[in-house]
Amino acid sequence: MRITGTFIDEISHDIPHQNWGKAEWDADFGHMKAIGIDTVILIRSGYRRFITYPSPWLQQHLGCYEPPVDLVELFLQLAEKHGMKFYFGLYDSGKYWDTGDMQHEIDANRYVIDEVWAKYGHYSSFGGWYLSMEISRKTKGAAAAFRTLGMQCKDVSGNLPTFISPWIDGKKAVLAASSSLTKAESVSLKAHEEEWGEIFTEIKGAVDAVAFQDGHIDYHELGDFFAVNKRLADAHGMACWTNAESFDRDMPIKFLPIKFEKLRLKLEAARQAGYDKAITFEFSHFMSPQSAYMQAGHLFNRYQEYMESLT
Amino acid sequence: MRITGTFIDEISHDIPHQNWGKAEWDADFGHMKAIGIDTVILIRSGYRRFITYPSPWLQQHLGCYEPPVDLVELFLQLAEKHGMKFYFGLYDSGKYWDTGDMQHEIDANRYVIDEVWAKYGHYSSFGGWYLSMEISRKTKGAAAAFRTLGMQCKDVSGNLPTFISPWIDGKKAVLAASSSLTKAESVSLKAHEEEWGEIFTEIKGAVDAVAFQDGHIDYHELGDFFAVNKRLADAHGMACWTNAESFDRDMPIKFLPIKFEKLRLKLEAARQAGYDKAITFEFSHFMSPQSAYMQAGHLFNRYQEYMESLT
Amino acid sequence: MRITGTFIDEISHDIPHQNWGKAEWDADFGHMKAIGIDTVILIRSGYRRFITYPSPWLQQHLGCYEPPVDLVELFLQLAEKHGMKFYFGLYDSGKYWDTGDMQHEIDANRYVIDEVWAKYGHYSSFGGWYLSMEISRKTKGAAAAFRTLGMQCKDVSGNLPTFISPWIDGKKAVLAASSSLTKAESVSLKAHEEEWGEIFTEIKGAVDAVAFQDGHIDYHELGDFFAVNKRLADAHGMACWTNAESFDRDMPIKFLPIKFEKLRLKLEAARQAGYDKAITFEFSHFMSPQSAYMQAGHLFNRYQEYMESLT
Repeated sequence: MRITGTFIDEISHDIPHQNWGKAEWDADFGHMKAIGIDTVILIRSGYRRFITYPSPWLQQHLGCYEPPVDLVELFLQLAEKHGMKFYFGLYDSGKYWDTGDMQHEIDANRYVIDEVWAKYGHYSSFGGWYLSMEISRKTKGAAAAFRTLGMQCKDVSGNLPTFISPWIDGKKAVLAASSSLTKAESVSLKAHEEEWGEIFTEIKGAVDAVAFQDGHIDYHELGDFFAVNKRLADAHGMACWTNAESFDRDMPIKFLPIKFEKLRLKLEAARQAGYDKAITFEFSHFMSPQSAYMQAGHLFNRYQEYMESLT
Repeated sequence: MRITGTFIDEISHDIPHQNWGKAEWDADFGHMKAIGIDTVILIRSGYRRFITYPSPWLQQHLGCYEPPVDLVELFLQLAEKHGMKFYFGLYDSGKYWDTGDMQHEIDANRYVIDEVWAKYGHYSSFGGWYLSMEISRKTKGAAAAFRTLGMQCKDVSGNLPTFISPWIDGKKAVLAASSSLTKAESVSLKAHEEEWGEIFTEIKGAVDAVAFQDGHIDYHELGDFFAVNKRLADAHGMACWTNAESFDRDMPIKFLPIKFEKLRLKLEAARQAGYDKAITFEFSHFMSPQSAYMQAGHLFNRYQEYMESLT
Repeated sequence: MRITGTFIDEISHDIPHQNWGKAEWDADFGHMKAIGIDTVILIRSGYRRFITYPSPWLQQHLGCYEPPVDLVELFLQLAEKHGMKFYFGLYDSGKYWDTGDMQHEIDANRYVIDEVWAKYGHYSSFGGWYLSMEISRKTKGAAAAFRTLGMQCKDVSGNLPTFISPWIDGKKAVLAASSSLTKAESVSLKAHEEEWGEIFTEIKGAVDAVAFQDGHIDYHELGDFFAVNKRLADAHGMACWTNAESFDRDMPIKFLPIKFEKLRLKLEAARQAGYDKAITFEFSHFMSPQSAYMQAGHLFNRYQEYMESLT
């Protein structure tokens, strides 16, 4: 199961910034390409007041700061240069995390989607949309919002594909800022299937692919959960991707690159479940030879050896 | 707003040590000089039993360990070599943090100040004193102690300048060892002005500059708080510096280098408020090209590009 | 007090993985050798479902994952190449940590010990056994289990030496996943001596050396505790080693390399107490010139300078 896509974590909730300029990003797209990545996904175009592109609407209406660089333009141009597709991640006002109400996200992104498509839609590398609000089963009410946002993205862009990347409410579903690594209560396989069946029914047609994050359950649970995910996606006509997390959730330092063996277990499980595509969160901190975390460069080498051993 | 000073975080409360020797420090002073830093400030000369210079008094009376290197001498010599001024940070017994009583700090530093001036006062790079006890509005009782310590420093050294670097009791004023990043209760602008007005009245004459730490409030609050700080400093005849923190308070890893955009926002706010000088906590971990945190080297580059773009 | 042994932290509870391959491990054994290390100790051969060598028994009976590399074989071969002794760390099912019951560890390791000796006992570098269950005074019931396991190791291998590395229940004895650095209640010197006297009486003959972890007490307490440890070990005919932790327990980031001054204080205390050998947890993350933590390379240099200054 080759990883062919990666998130780009700018703006980040919880991963310290590498402070790369244009030269470092150009080199990193080259590193991605070298291991077969053809898709880059901006994790979100903004979070609260920090944004990735100069947005008149967000700056005027939500008090966002003028960004020092237009990262959306930079990433679209580098994607063109390196022959990759770019997915645009929607704006995250932070209010959904605070209040559980998705209306703020719908209101803001109505403008963001139009603004972004008008400004950047002409790039041949503009390949799709990422509905960036992360949900799990307890946020089922959010499904209607996903439907609204997904349809707007598709309508404005001539039906470019959309995807989501929710989390499984497993034992490792704890906040990054929490000092714990696990929680006592986690979802059963049966409840997972029932609840996501309802969500998929509601978002069908507005969301083309679902890429569950693979890091919230234990490694021996991967097979069962992945089989359910694939069955659900197939039943609702959605592509089933895996979001193979390349950072380690089992360590007190939140977060450094994952142990290769764990990544391998997760990719093997996705392959066995017949998943359609693997993306990762994310290459530049956790798998890149130029990452500030030197463990990432070694992971890059181990991953390449593994890919070569399969061919 | 160019950064012209940096703390040197030896002894540290909460930043892991880089284990540099003389060669690395010499190179780092060179890196500092290259971006315009003319002032280095020893954050504290000792903390509990760890000290930066061999102190007969501290070793005999407080059980401090014999240090492997005389860092005060090393930094004074490197400051001379690179044409910089060195500020000496007072000793911190740790008892103030435990008990809220500054008397221990006054008692110990009475001897430290004399000892240090006798031993190192002849260095032409000895430029001033840093009253290292970090206070905020809730420690107003500490103001009298600052007065005592500041006057002693000035008296012994022919009136060399003194400064403090307190924190604003904002929403990010949480302990480094806490797993949280923010707290619910934070100071209002009005209370901040009233309470610091009282403190400044008391320390006037004994403290020449105040360098508020800039990391405990949100970025959109910078303008208002900085305007108050400048007004207060002006009213009491003190210089108004900013302590531009170059580490990121918003991330679960405590602490790695800050995202450049955030540092830029803080420096812009200081410039707009008409601040007199910018120092940082601190160059060697968070901005140096040779830092163990490689993000720091990229921050160095982004900062240099920014400075060049302003000229 | 020269460090002549190091743990190898594969599989780790709490230190993020470096993702090294054979080339990096070979180079690291060379770095170890260069500073006088003649003993490498596998911290544990497995933890829960992750294991370091392909074990038919563990895979069939405990659902362990097939490991991507046979690390036991790799380390034995590298130890032969570099002229070092390899100690095998027993399997840790994780159940003892969860339940306080050592019976699971005895049951699993009965098979592991036989399996491993049959498979790897012919290597001339196979030098001994590490009883990997970490205990402290509150787990006295575990002493009988240590006796059982130690005797089995010795019986199967022609009396190869065994050792344990318990912790002192000092003020820094907090969980790695906890956000605190210290706790209020810690053991008194007297209780430490009484309780460990009982434990040593029970394990005598089955355990050849005890290497207390040196990081759970304050630096000024080292002398007193080390003197007790040496007296106890002597009285029970065991060798007294120190496990000199080369990571820093005093910082919010858990864990980065220790400040050299602290390591020096601990090694000096072990020397003064007349300890027999110093090992460290552990070289590859915290002292190696090729560690992903660049502070480690500087620690390597400071340590080398210190060793040279003593000769």
